[in-house]
Amino acid sequence: MNIDMIRAAQKRIAGHIRRTPLLNSPFIDEMAGRRVWIKPECLQHTGSFKYRGARAAVSALSEAELARGVIAYSSGNHAQGVALAAREHGATAVIIMPADAPRVKIDNTRALGGEVVLYDRAAGEDRDALGAELSASRGLTLIRPFDEPQVIAGQGTAGLEIADQAREAGISDADVVVCCGGGGFASGIALALEAEAPGLRVRPCEPAGFDDMARSLATGRQCRNATPSGSLCDAIVSPQPGELTLPVLLRLAGPGLVVTDNEALSAMAAAFSHLRLVAEPGGAVALAAALFRQDEIDGDDVIVTISGGNVDAGVFQTALHRNMA
Amino acid sequence: MNIDMIRAAQKRIAGHIRRTPLLNSPFIDEMAGRRVWIKPECLQHTGSFKYRGARAAVSALSEAELARGVIAYSSGNHAQGVALAAREHGATAVIIMPADAPRVKIDNTRALGGEVVLYDRAAGEDRDALGAELSASRGLTLIRPFDEPQVIAGQGTAGLEIADQAREAGISDADVVVCCGGGGFASGIALALEAEAPGLRVRPCEPAGFDDMARSLATGRQCRNATPSGSLCDAIVSPQPGELTLPVLLRLAGPGLVVTDNEALSAMAAAFSHLRLVAEPGGAVALAAALFRQDEIDGDDVIVTISGGNVDAGVFQTALHRNMA
Repeated sequence: MNIDMIRAAQKRIAGHIRRTPLLNSPFIDEMAGRRVWIKPECLQHTGSFKYRGARAAVSALSEAELARGVIAYSSGNHAQGVALAAREHGATAVIIMPADAPRVKIDNTRALGGEVVLYDRAAGEDRDALGAELSASRGLTLIRPFDEPQVIAGQGTAGLEIADQAREAGISDADVVVCCGGGGFASGIALALEAEAPGLRVRPCEPAGFDDMARSLATGRQCRNATPSGSLCDAIVSPQPGELTLPVLLRLAGPGLVVTDNEALSAMAAAFSHLRLVAEPGGAVALAAALFRQDEIDGDDVIVTISGGNVDAGVFQTALHRNMA
Repeated sequence: MNIDMIRAAQKRIAGHIRRTPLLNSPFIDEMAGRRVWIKPECLQHTGSFKYRGARAAVSALSEAELARGVIAYSSGNHAQGVALAAREHGATAVIIMPADAPRVKIDNTRALGGEVVLYDRAAGEDRDALGAELSASRGLTLIRPFDEPQVIAGQGTAGLEIADQAREAGISDADVVVCCGGGGFASGIALALEAEAPGLRVRPCEPAGFDDMARSLATGRQCRNATPSGSLCDAIVSPQPGELTLPVLLRLAGPGLVVTDNEALSAMAAAFSHLRLVAEPGGAVALAAALFRQDEIDGDDVIVTISGGNVDAGVFQTALHRNMA
């Protein structure tokens, strides 16, 4: 993994991904006690940064690989990114999703042309065996959600944009709080910033109870979560940091930040009121850290990602209701 | 009013306003039966396009005028735009607002430094007399919400952006559906498009029961609404078209489009689900027209504005609830 791969990915996906803006609000600044710059990847195609990596990975495949098709495992955002990127390349995409994934994500993945195969994670159905069987019988290429160089390179294009936008805004020294699951987004951004804006430092942010990355960064070794699921921030829950992502983040990022589900809901309400953006719980944890972990962040400025905005209306209503109460 | 004023306004406000993107979604396209391009002014500073005109007007004042301060009448979005633009110029802003304006807009106007004076429109309190008295005693300069050349010029900068973005997207011929109250936004955009993208035609859109502009465009003379208020789309209700705006729109725009409050709510839900944007009812009428007035729109592409995103959480929940039902 290196900056050249990120620059190559940027060239390959230019004109297909959206260059998301860097937003701010005087109201958010006041709540956070410092200037907060928001990178809204909820405005990316398919509603999350995952499309960057999916498009970068699918566009790197050979004609023969595209003709056979691709396969991905995902609780939703990677699923939609891969489905759209595959459709744009005329390729079949088989997506293995947990049956209890948010309905809106399953529906959207199908609507984007993805061939969705559901499995029951609570009943212990073996996702990997299911995928291996399908993959072998049909010759599908697996697009991993984070531990995949081209995916990390694609996510890193957001870091190149952040470096440019921070320079334009006159920010040379700040924490960049990034919503973190397996660490693909965080490590791609960290590599881009190392090359383009070395005064900016990635701070991965996770939901409480699923802080495998924060513990791994603190201890220097790969820690696992105690349970596989159960957070409202389902989009960014992974069992453990990736083999490729953890070394990058140990070298370039941290310490990790951890917020509660309720804090993520409050951040969703703040994004609604002051940024007019729809964030999903897992997409709002970095903004939650800026609002509720002020003492753990350094400097007059902080950059945060909103990583995704695919949220069931009922969950969103819960966030608004908390805010009104 | 001419294109030179719009270009001059653009130079004056460059670096202060946001150049909002042009977004789309395959889901919205499918619902609308054609390609829909969305200009999300809900992402503008203060949450609506009104900041463009306010900044353009305030930045055109002399030092002596700024030292005395400004005054504006507004149900909320113009209020916030003027309050912020005045604060940025170190000027006082007195904002006369109806006491029944949405709470969030009153609160935000105060938080942006506006000196809010409430009046009771239902009880027949005379807003104009109140404003004239304050204005005379303090020497305040009135910033009209739409019938003011510098405000129209500022709103027209959105039209310059649309012209550029349409060119980049390869669109040379399309309707541009614009949320319309007094017609400042619509006429500014129409003048910009006349000069920069003559194949694009403005179609003002209003809420049912408050379609003064549509009737004025159809009859060629200034028509009034029967009642002063009562639409969920409060942000874009004005008694009649402006003296400056109507001639521009009679020459360059129309016919008008009209949607119901319920259609505006459904458009809000579509913006939530597929664009991850928060739109207020009046800000969503143009998208509603693309979704529900397909037969009245021409061409393979349509451009629509989302003009504002300042909405009480309760109203937003109503929109989401309708969508879930």
